[in-house]
Amino acid sequence: MNQLAKLGEFGLIDRLKRFQNLSLRVVKGMGDDAAVLSLDSKHYQLFTTDMIVEGVHFLKGERAFDVGHKALACNISDIAAMGGWATFAVVSLGLPSGTPVQYVEKIYAGMAALAKKFHVSIVGGDTVKADKLTINIALLGEVEKKNLVTRDGAKPGDVIFVTGRLGGSFKSRKHLTFLPRVAEARFLVEAFKPHAMMDISDGLLGDLGHILKASRAGAVLEEKLIPCAKGASLTEALSQGEDFELLFTCSSVKASKLLEYTTKHKAFPFYKVGRIIAQPNKLFLEGKNGLRLVKPRSFTHF
Amino acid sequence: MNQLAKLGEFGLIDRLKRFQNLSLRVVKGMGDDAAVLSLDSKHYQLFTTDMIVEGVHFLKGERAFDVGHKALACNISDIAAMGGWATFAVVSLGLPSGTPVQYVEKIYAGMAALAKKFHVSIVGGDTVKADKLTINIALLGEVEKKNLVTRDGAKPGDVIFVTGRLGGSFKSRKHLTFLPRVAEARFLVEAFKPHAMMDISDGLLGDLGHILKASRAGAVLEEKLIPCAKGASLTEALSQGEDFELLFTCSSVKASKLLEYTTKHKAFPFYKVGRIIAQPNKLFLEGKNGLRLVKPRSFTHF
Repeated sequence: MNQLAKLGEFGLIDRLKRFQNLSLRVVKGMGDDAAVLSLDSKHYQLFTTDMIVEGVHFLKGERAFDVGHKALACNISDIAAMGGWATFAVVSLGLPSGTPVQYVEKIYAGMAALAKKFHVSIVGGDTVKADKLTINIALLGEVEKKNLVTRDGAKPGDVIFVTGRLGGSFKSRKHLTFLPRVAEARFLVEAFKPHAMMDISDGLLGDLGHILKASRAGAVLEEKLIPCAKGASLTEALSQGEDFELLFTCSSVKASKLLEYTTKHKAFPFYKVGRIIAQPNKLFLEGKNGLRLVKPRSFTHF
Repeated sequence: MNQLAKLGEFGLIDRLKRFQNLSLRVVKGMGDDAAVLSLDSKHYQLFTTDMIVEGVHFLKGERAFDVGHKALACNISDIAAMGGWATFAVVSLGLPSGTPVQYVEKIYAGMAALAKKFHVSIVGGDTVKADKLTINIALLGEVEKKNLVTRDGAKPGDVIFVTGRLGGSFKSRKHLTFLPRVAEARFLVEAFKPHAMMDISDGLLGDLGHILKASRAGAVLEEKLIPCAKGASLTEALSQGEDFELLFTCSSVKASKLLEYTTKHKAFPFYKVGRIIAQPNKLFLEGKNGLRLVKPRSFTHF
């Protein structure tokens, strides 16, 4: 295992934070789903970026439309995770020489269809030569100041939820075709004040670990409550990446109201999966035989 | 030559424009150095992105500090080309497995040193696995509405200038170590109202071609006025890429004042290189033997 693999993406980010050179207009820099910047008296601007690479995030020969969709969707998901909505995107394409122009246009068609659905304007970009198809999107978004949700607000006693079934996203192709949970996020921030939220890209255990670290709290996940995707085992639901569901916590009072409301109105499915506890960074799985301590394992590409 | 090479980067961009889905808040989408977005009553927001890839934009084994510098510098140069200043950046790194952590930190050190100089905050990013080192930066900037300069305002009679000597930037390593011309751009927009401006990344002839196309105008470049970098031939100064000097036009009245001012105060060197003429897309070189029509050749990576 090389040095980078040992450190991991998040260890690396921690070491790179000292290079940020943050101005007073930066409300939140590296370390959440999106950066938070001053905008006007009532709103923040959100800013995020994601790079996807052939052979790592999608297979060679994958449908171009779906690849384009994914490249934008995972960015919109980051904006949703802050409670906001997406606005403007710039797109960089690294293209192997010989890529058919039609393939490039289909990537854009996939992005554009999603952009239209989520009112995103694609305002610019860059195209360069690369050995493997590489797409980088940077996306802006906005959120009302009062509705911003970050990773660091989880409180002991909070109930933990996810917005959909987990696991097996590579097999089911959900990692390519998912719809970012903007409607769910907006519904939540407007009526149920989540204390902490993020999207699940590295797997439930790993991503919950990020909330726990940022919030200096612990958690208990109840095995029987974890909503496994069709064909996915509990282990897969807990540890596989790229589900792109939202993971959030809210007070137990709000949680009861949320479950009551969604049952009554047959609204979005929100799955309660556990609770926040006071012990910092302790993550427990609760099964038939009681509690067992687990490590927040992350899906990592290194 | 493959289909993409035949079409070229700019042919491709023309075909991708239909996918933009522009909202009313987009003042200018694809096709300039940066996108222009509504911000407040007095300012626009600028948004740009650039991807650089090992083996294409820099060589394997190149100094990490310089690679980081370049990745940010070419983005800041795009913001300068609109007349603005840079504010916030997000950075995506595609890293070959086995990349030493120290190398990554040096890339960031190079970016951070430049970010500090130009008051840019690095607010987030993404790190993924890639076969070849790939850096994508997306950068925000701002400009007063009255000071925005685009590519499409060149007028017959305008004088054409560049901000520095051209050619040989790969040999001299200037393509890695250049300083983006923000101070020059701000000086110009505040006192000399350029009609059109862009940065020279694809070579003088090619980039002037973009201004001519956008402005529906032509130009005459005077061979004897082209400022060749030390060791660079006229052909290299005209056609090689990655100089990252600014190319701009302004009225002949402003041009005289500009030359007078800079001579008197020994300020920035601005090199007059030619003039805008009325014939759309006609680009002439004026030499000892009179005028000859040339093709706006672009340095292209495909």
